[in-house]
Amino acid sequence: MKDRIFRVNLTDMTTSVEDVPESWAGHGGRGLTSTIVAAEVDPTCHPLGPKNKLVFAPGLLSGTVAANSGRLSVGGKSPLTGTIKEANGGGTAAQLMARCGVKALILEGQPADDKWFSLAVTPEGVTIEEETELVGKGNFAVLETLSTRLENNPAIITIGPAGEMKMAAANISIKDPDGGIRSNGRGGLGAVMGSKRVKFISVTPGDAKLEIADPEAFKAANRTFAKALVDHPVSQALGQYGTNVLVNIINESGGLPTKNFTQGQFEGHEKISGETMHDTIKERGGRVKHNCHPGCVIQCSQVYHDADGKKLTSGFEYESIWAMGADCCVDNLDHIAMADKLMDDIGIDSIETSVAFGVAMEAGILEFGDGEGVCRMLKEDVATGTGLGRVIGNGAGSVGRTYGVTRVPVVKNQAIPAYDPRAIKGIGITYATSTQGADHTMGYTIATNILNVGGAVDPLTKEGQVELSRNLQIATAAIDSTGMCLFIAFAALDNEECLPALIDLLNARFGISLTADDVVNLGKYILKTEREFNEKAGFTNLDDRLPEFFYNEPLSPHNVVFDFSGEEIDTFWDF
Amino acid sequence: MKDRIFRVNLTDMTTSVEDVPESWAGHGGRGLTSTIVAAEVDPTCHPLGPKNKLVFAPGLLSGTVAANSGRLSVGGKSPLTGTIKEANGGGTAAQLMARCGVKALILEGQPADDKWFSLAVTPEGVTIEEETELVGKGNFAVLETLSTRLENNPAIITIGPAGEMKMAAANISIKDPDGGIRSNGRGGLGAVMGSKRVKFISVTPGDAKLEIADPEAFKAANRTFAKALVDHPVSQALGQYGTNVLVNIINESGGLPTKNFTQGQFEGHEKISGETMHDTIKERGGRVKHNCHPGCVIQCSQVYHDADGKKLTSGFEYESIWAMGADCCVDNLDHIAMADKLMDDIGIDSIETSVAFGVAMEAGILEFGDGEGVCRMLKEDVATGTGLGRVIGNGAGSVGRTYGVTRVPVVKNQAIPAYDPRAIKGIGITYATSTQGADHTMGYTIATNILNVGGAVDPLTKEGQVELSRNLQIATAAIDSTGMCLFIAFAALDNEECLPALIDLLNARFGISLTADDVVNLGKYILKTEREFNEKAGFTNLDDRLPEFFYNEPLSPHNVVFDFSGEEIDTFWDF
Repeated sequence: MKDRIFRVNLTDMTTSVEDVPESWAGHGGRGLTSTIVAAEVDPTCHPLGPKNKLVFAPGLLSGTVAANSGRLSVGGKSPLTGTIKEANGGGTAAQLMARCGVKALILEGQPADDKWFSLAVTPEGVTIEEETELVGKGNFAVLETLSTRLENNPAIITIGPAGEMKMAAANISIKDPDGGIRSNGRGGLGAVMGSKRVKFISVTPGDAKLEIADPEAFKAANRTFAKALVDHPVSQALGQYGTNVLVNIINESGGLPTKNFTQGQFEGHEKISGETMHDTIKERGGRVKHNCHPGCVIQCSQVYHDADGKKLTSGFEYESIWAMGADCCVDNLDHIAMADKLMDDIGIDSIETSVAFGVAMEAGILEFGDGEGVCRMLKEDVATGTGLGRVIGNGAGSVGRTYGVTRVPVVKNQAIPAYDPRAIKGIGITYATSTQGADHTMGYTIATNILNVGGAVDPLTKEGQVELSRNLQIATAAIDSTGMCLFIAFAALDNEECLPALIDLLNARFGISLTADDVVNLGKYILKTEREFNEKAGFTNLDDRLPEFFYNEPLSPHNVVFDFSGEEIDTFWDF
Repeated sequence: MKDRIFRVNLTDMTTSVEDVPESWAGHGGRGLTSTIVAAEVDPTCHPLGPKNKLVFAPGLLSGTVAANSGRLSVGGKSPLTGTIKEANGGGTAAQLMARCGVKALILEGQPADDKWFSLAVTPEGVTIEEETELVGKGNFAVLETLSTRLENNPAIITIGPAGEMKMAAANISIKDPDGGIRSNGRGGLGAVMGSKRVKFISVTPGDAKLEIADPEAFKAANRTFAKALVDHPVSQALGQYGTNVLVNIINESGGLPTKNFTQGQFEGHEKISGETMHDTIKERGGRVKHNCHPGCVIQCSQVYHDADGKKLTSGFEYESIWAMGADCCVDNLDHIAMADKLMDDIGIDSIETSVAFGVAMEAGILEFGDGEGVCRMLKEDVATGTGLGRVIGNGAGSVGRTYGVTRVPVVKNQAIPAYDPRAIKGIGITYATSTQGADHTMGYTIATNILNVGGAVDPLTKEGQVELSRNLQIATAAIDSTGMCLFIAFAALDNEECLPALIDLLNARFGISLTADDVVNLGKYILKTEREFNEKAGFTNLDDRLPEFFYNEPLSPHNVVFDFSGEEIDTFWDF
């Protein structure tokens, strides 16, 4: 099946299937969403207005049997940051969309009236239907209803109440293989989907299959590639403890932001650690390992049960646990899991929202540590859209502005995640320079700063951090184009067979002959395309800065500040 | 008495009185606040953090008997716009401060703990005292308590609950000669005062008097100047109907923004017009004319009574009446007056807050026209700081962002006031290019577009608007430095004796020999100084734009859009 561009215009309710422009042919995932957004979206437009577009793109390898290739990129202009945005997540949608021959699905325009719609994607194209039953419903109710309403187990891409209410922290949520939820979380693209009044999208490929140019070479490369992944010790730790293995590691480093970024270590870290989580899951009969999409060989996800042995949440990530845990001083893993489940159901970013609660606690709205209060407020305020609920649902910056708080950990209005840039300086460069606001996944220097993957760069000194972040951001942009999970990076950095095998996979899939240089150039092209969009939207190098308090308030236990000058940060872009 | 710089550091609780640096000597009012802010405030600092400063400066002629010279400028980095900001207002503070020999009063730093303070300014300097009794109190209670607590009828500069809660629409409020309130309203400088934990400032000059270099020449110039003011027909209309004379005029022009900027005329305009207000005041025994500071010969202020003949509000301005009236579709002048009084008491900008209510009505929080609902919400939400109350108290942009509304009339996050830029195009250029966010007073093209003062420029065509706005913005910046009320501009534009008399006043006051060219150059210097600050804060020409809907949604009855290209707008700065 030939890949094509599927387009839906919500203003006039038309759909089309178009040939792929030649200049887009080599792109997938983030590279394609950013290319399309840069080409078709006015950078100065209102993110929730009719001129913004929402672009879905499977990665270049999505839909194949290549290990860990099931990430779906979603792009647009972010209502949270005002920048270009790509959020990628797992679940089954990327693979099924790729099998439908969808190179990209573009939603554009906006309905004039206040009806809601659903979209059905098949290899033949897209159909639009009015939706009434599921409007206002949480994500779990959507998935449950659709599991009986729709045949052939389609992928489901949906928004919860947060997206319907156009909250700037709203996720686009995607069904995982077991009916759980994965989130394209950062940057509020769920609000863009809500602004286009699309409640959900189903994806049903039927018997359609991808063509592989050289199936034998593909299989061989995948064997090498998958072996590199499973052999790496970080992959193994992720499979055993989930990403939450990091709580104790980052706490030990003194870079675990605690109590709204006022300390670098959390007294309750043991209680919320990956080790405790692992033991709790085993005790209660949950699942220690779980994959968010078919073909994942790392299986960092898990299913966490409550004390009665019933499923409470799945895909229980380090950054979410850190945010509701250390940053809000909640040391009860069950409260954190309940909050995680509620945020999945509301369809709202568990990093942004939890950091927003940390700022709200500093503002005195709740006591630090009050996990039950957070759950109550998620149900009574955020899910229902009270004034306060919307303030929180619009993220940490929103809470800070609304309550006059000055210690607000955001860059380009997006919440800083689970690694303090004062004690882990490389990640501070990533937060500052990322084209998409603070985001650890844009250039995960923790690998080298803390885990000694791909070498070692001392997290507490400035030396080498800009270069480290630059190299990782370039590589990440390329990886995000393949549909690969970012966790392939650990093997790619340490195992010299891994990256060549990935390139072999791409070459065998398309019958081309990419080199490692081509991959690096792809990464550079993506970053520069994104930055150019942001410049046209009004961003300057002055937006590539951390909030004032990181420069002024030393972080315990190392008593360090973030001490890069603006000029030093700006050298990031010297490539 | 020699003018000096009075400085208060709230971090270490020290005060000082300093000689005026030579480069500041020729400045007063806005020219001085902007010069000091540009010199001493890091443009990238958090507006509510310790690095921002709050600068008070009487105008160059304040404290003299020159007619209409009692405006006090307050400057800082705005928490609403992020730009440099000067807000000026009437009341008795400018004159008494000037008599204390205060060239400027600079508040800097921030207390470490959560105590509140008051400042007492005398010719000897400033003293700091802890304040407890008035914390949390509304402005009227503050004025009443201080009228008995303090001797010698000092000027009072205070913040209400909005400033204490650091709402981005918070005023700095100043006592008028009759114990009413005048507001330095735009841009939320009350929140900066709150961030420094200063509840109020008293100003007591005792017997101190200003020196006039050439008293006879000063008197002669003032006679000419005052005569020019009182002779102008617009001055006379302002004295009779207040600024609210404009409701019917702007409605007739089709540029009265109605129902959150969806129409250019308001069906209920007669009920809220200056003519109706005038008759109502007379019927109920209020005061049709009233001056906001001693020496005003125009007297556009008034005292508006309720149906029982008791004072309801004073200083009841067109822009406030438009905002709560036409923009929120409230056609009951008593409801508008009650809202005005409540906003004065809370200490919050009646333009920003009312436009915020218009956006809130579009979001469905209240019905359009529900003036009683607005008053209830002001009391129960804004004054007490509920989540919703803070969303509103942070202005129109805040409501728009929080509720995902795309029709949000703001520039640089400041609410667009009472003149629609689609039907009155000159004012659109002012809104777009002003260094301080949308603000009609920065370059009041209504004079020439609508009132035919200073010539006539057709409001509906593009021709001549950029030049008109440029000339007026330059002149306004200079006028804002003199302490003169902006309403001298009508006479200055039409009466050829007026501007020379103003220059004679300056020359006689200081024993200098300014020319008209010097005044124009002063205005240019101020605009460029302010713009340079904004550029260093990260603003670009892309911030000099109106919201998308002004370009896309034609305004009835003329069915016009705002049709200036970015390049055309940018020519404003060609000087």
